Amino acid sequence: MKKSTLSTIAKKLGISVSTVSRALHNKDGVSDSLRKRIIREAMESGYIDQLPSVLEKRPRIIGIIVPNIQNPFFLNFLKGAESVLFHRNFQFTVCNIDEDIYKERIYLKWLQENKVMGIIAAPAFSESGKTNLDIYMELGKSIPVVLYDREFYNYKEFDSVTFDNEGTIIDGVKYLYDKGHRKIGILLSKQGNFCTRERFKGYKKALKLFDLPLVESWILNNLYSNDDIVIKKIENFLLQDNLPTAVICTTNNITYNFLKAAKNLQINVPGDISLLGFGEIPQNELLNPPLSIMKQPSIEIGRIAATTILARIDGQQSEISRIALKSTLVPRSSVKTIS
Amino acid sequence: MKKSTLSTIAKKLGISVSTVSRALHNKDGVSDSLRKRIIREAMESGYIDQLPSVLEKRPRIIGIIVPNIQNPFFLNFLKGAESVLFHRNFQFTVCNIDEDIYKERIYLKWLQENKVMGIIAAPAFSESGKTNLDIYMELGKSIPVVLYDREFYNYKEFDSVTFDNEGTIIDGVKYLYDKGHRKIGILLSKQGNFCTRERFKGYKKALKLFDLPLVESWILNNLYSNDDIVIKKIENFLLQDNLPTAVICTTNNITYNFLKAAKNLQINVPGDISLLGFGEIPQNELLNPPLSIMKQPSIEIGRIAATTILARIDGQQSEISRIALKSTLVPRSSVKTIS
Repeated sequence: MKKSTLSTIAKKLGISVSTVSRALHNKDGVSDSLRKRIIREAMESGYIDQLPSVLEKRPRIIGIIVPNIQNPFFLNFLKGAESVLFHRNFQFTVCNIDEDIYKERIYLKWLQENKVMGIIAAPAFSESGKTNLDIYMELGKSIPVVLYDREFYNYKEFDSVTFDNEGTIIDGVKYLYDKGHRKIGILLSKQGNFCTRERFKGYKKALKLFDLPLVESWILNNLYSNDDIVIKKIENFLLQDNLPTAVICTTNNITYNFLKAAKNLQINVPGDISLLGFGEIPQNELLNPPLSIMKQPSIEIGRIAATTILARIDGQQSEISRIALKSTLVPRSSVKTIS
Repeated sequence: MKKSTLSTIAKKLGISVSTVSRALHNKDGVSDSLRKRIIREAMESGYIDQLPSVLEKRPRIIGIIVPNIQNPFFLNFLKGAESVLFHRNFQFTVCNIDEDIYKERIYLKWLQENKVMGIIAAPAFSESGKTNLDIYMELGKSIPVVLYDREFYNYKEFDSVTFDNEGTIIDGVKYLYDKGHRKIGILLSKQGNFCTRERFKGYKKALKLFDLPLVESWILNNLYSNDDIVIKKIENFLLQDNLPTAVICTTNNITYNFLKAAKNLQINVPGDISLLGFGEIPQNELLNPPLSIMKQPSIEIGRIAATTILARIDGQQSEISRIALKSTLVPRSSVKTIS
């Protein structure tokens, strides 16, 4: 039998070579019924033996690895991703890994077994900095992987959409500095995590930049566990004799728990201490006090991550795309001016 | 050829009849490789012809229909559902339908084509009360469908987990009555929606029960669109001469937009008007004023919906299960006492 090619299949079916190629590579723009006819012809003519993976029809599903589904950031992130995926007839599964690399492994295995067409992931970091990079690299050989919110330190070959964490904190410290603050503390989330490290780096850079002192007791680290413990740790922080005049709370969760701890101790914000929070939600302007916040473009992160993975699936992207988005500072009343 | 049965297949492979049955019904507790051997044997021995659907191996995916992904209710709902599904090795896809029956149709078609193993849905209602009940009924013939948050009015054959909407509003009116309020208004979401109708029913019942007047201008309906429009409508409501002394805001979104409208008009809550809100989030106690709220058990709704669909998939449930959960009233400072 004469060896079959894309072009002989196209001729036989009276369609274009590119349509045959699209069908056999599981791309868009080919109806399901035509795709089936093409695959059948490719099998009967023996072409399929050269390309057996074609028969593995993958469902149009993107796996989304979410570090903690209860973070309000994800409402906007998922909204942004969905708005892009829906119009391209893609679904997504939500894999809530609770910042746990072992849970993440189980989900990644599932995504692999179920042959999703791509993975959008904010990977977990253990406290000692361990990750599942090896699994992502293995997965990355067969399907596109796009990172969001975080990147791996030692491997930059995945497309990524992150926040400019360093720049955001530097902007935050500058804002506080301009309001007269010289004693500035920082409250950080899970140790080992990419965002935590980057934000801490930004803090140290900013202190140097503005010639401010780095005081160990003004740095509260690893605020990642249940709310009661976080609040207790912040209360202890607030009871120190030499308080900073302002703090930056670097996650949503830390921000509200800071307000709760201050309330418990009847410490007035911003009277006794100023607060610059992280993460915009519709309630911030209604809080007591209305919160000054670093607003992350969460919907955009979702949109860009989804657009990037579709470009990969379509084979339209060749260069590695690493995007870091700026946050904006929304000033309200939780930071007072010191003269 | 002698007719093959579960028992002949079991004997041939040296395994138990129940294992064969589990494998052919796609249930847990059979390894993938054993399942394949069993299916192969069932085919070769001709048993499969009696049960052709067996070969359709469905992915372990549950489709979750979400009316509006940006409602913070879903953070807890999805958390609850995920905590159950994860341990049973099930994934879920999130189908955000934006309260739109046409978008819902597209997602349902997708879920059907991709052969999910079950659907957990909060179905959409058009303003005139139209739904996709026919599609759900058709889907319900081949896979389990569990409703949450809403039910269909004219068809009660699906398992469901809802809130006791009527009872919740009656409790709310009673709370306001006990605090001395006699002029009580209500702000309602999308017209036609199940929850809106049930909550309005509860309001009318409660007014009768406590012998309170029903004043048309104290009822604000169809507050479902972008925030600016909702705030504008509430501002108009607040500008009427004869204001109620207290209102119940019956969704999360309406509650915060009410506070924003009052703030815009410098109307004091609860000084000028008391507010009983809906939906607990961690920020409620930090608001100005701290919000009195009807707290819905959102995590539990997610857990029960997931548990119910797994029981259906396992064939462990026969009766229709219709559960309505009570809300709890969390009193804070947004309702004042009138003497």
